[in-house]
Amino acid sequence: MAKSEGIPAPAVRRLSLYLRHLENSQGRNRATVSSRELSRAVGVTDAQVRKDLAYFGQFGHPGIGYRVDDLVARMREILGADKVRSVVLIGAGNLGKALMSYRGFRKKNFNLIAVFDNDPQKVGEPAADAVCDRIQSLDKLEAVVRKHEVKLAILAVPASAAQVIAERLATAGVRGILNFAPVILQTRPGVTTSTVDLAVQLEQLSFLVTTGQTGDDRDGDGLN
Amino acid sequence: MAKSEGIPAPAVRRLSLYLRHLENSQGRNRATVSSRELSRAVGVTDAQVRKDLAYFGQFGHPGIGYRVDDLVARMREILGADKVRSVVLIGAGNLGKALMSYRGFRKKNFNLIAVFDNDPQKVGEPAADAVCDRIQSLDKLEAVVRKHEVKLAILAVPASAAQVIAERLATAGVRGILNFAPVILQTRPGVTTSTVDLAVQLEQLSFLVTTGQTGDDRDGDGLN
Repeated sequence: MAKSEGIPAPAVRRLSLYLRHLENSQGRNRATVSSRELSRAVGVTDAQVRKDLAYFGQFGHPGIGYRVDDLVARMREILGADKVRSVVLIGAGNLGKALMSYRGFRKKNFNLIAVFDNDPQKVGEPAADAVCDRIQSLDKLEAVVRKHEVKLAILAVPASAAQVIAERLATAGVRGILNFAPVILQTRPGVTTSTVDLAVQLEQLSFLVTTGQTGDDRDGDGLN
Repeated sequence: MAKSEGIPAPAVRRLSLYLRHLENSQGRNRATVSSRELSRAVGVTDAQVRKDLAYFGQFGHPGIGYRVDDLVARMREILGADKVRSVVLIGAGNLGKALMSYRGFRKKNFNLIAVFDNDPQKVGEPAADAVCDRIQSLDKLEAVVRKHEVKLAILAVPASAAQVIAERLATAGVRGILNFAPVILQTRPGVTTSTVDLAVQLEQLSFLVTTGQTGDDRDGDGLN
């Protein structure tokens, strides 16, 4: 039985690392992988791998391992990674501009449909690769979110504005907010926020240097 | 015996999560924490906690747990988090500008000493909170890195420029590179690079939404 609800956040983080390793294995035409191989790739014990993957049902076969194609398809389906997901971006300052021209979102099946800012000087400026190719007034936020049933938003606004906008997003139906403002958002039931702290990335790099790690640690997952 | 070298990257990631939980416990005047509490906070098994913390020597006391003050001091010392570390930033485009005004680095004892760009139009412009308060020509990179013995750099340049600049940084003595360019850097022995993929952050948020997680997942560590 797959339990797709209530998977702990750290397990979800690992699932995305397992998925990446499995997709790489698929690219190399591997039919099966062992829990031991996955445990080494993600840096946890074998038992942890088996526990984590049990969230997706029982796919391990004794003496064979996990069937790569089956597990990838099931994970992508449960995680929603097989569908295009619409995203809105709020804030067209330096970070917002960097995010709106970021090509990596499209590669992972995210579609940036609109960019909003409350600065009248910015409204109407080009919005890089967004579907609506001009920055829109923040007044239009709810209408666009509701019309396109957007569930995901990226907040790149000053700390002082973040909480109010998060509440407006939640009321309009957004379920997940990726927050770059240096503030912990108060959320309501049914809404997930994820606050990105860029200094933590630098801290972890510094730790890797201090502890004698070398090589390229893409996203800190130790897969490279 | 503490083994400060060769700690696997995923363990280092967890160490920074343990450290944050321990610092929070310290703030609440807790004298000890159990491996069970740490395991819940970071989302791994008890055994994994004990294995990870063994890198810092034996601090667990049967029936008591880990002494918070001792463990925090030892971790901060081994991880170098007790010292101010100098950082240079290369690239003053949208992302570079967002990073140079980012206040979180200073809070974690990182000191942004200089910002470089190869665009003559940008050289001489203000560099926000950096110690050298003007953007400098990329020609000056090696001289500044060597003079100040800088070990950490942040790369916010186009993909096409990243590899060449990474090599220049390594030759000048940099040991850790936080790379925002969408390219895996080839490194040499003794140099660690960490490539940040912003789309992965959005992907993990989307997974949390899909799997029914709510609340604020600061840095995806599930501590909030």
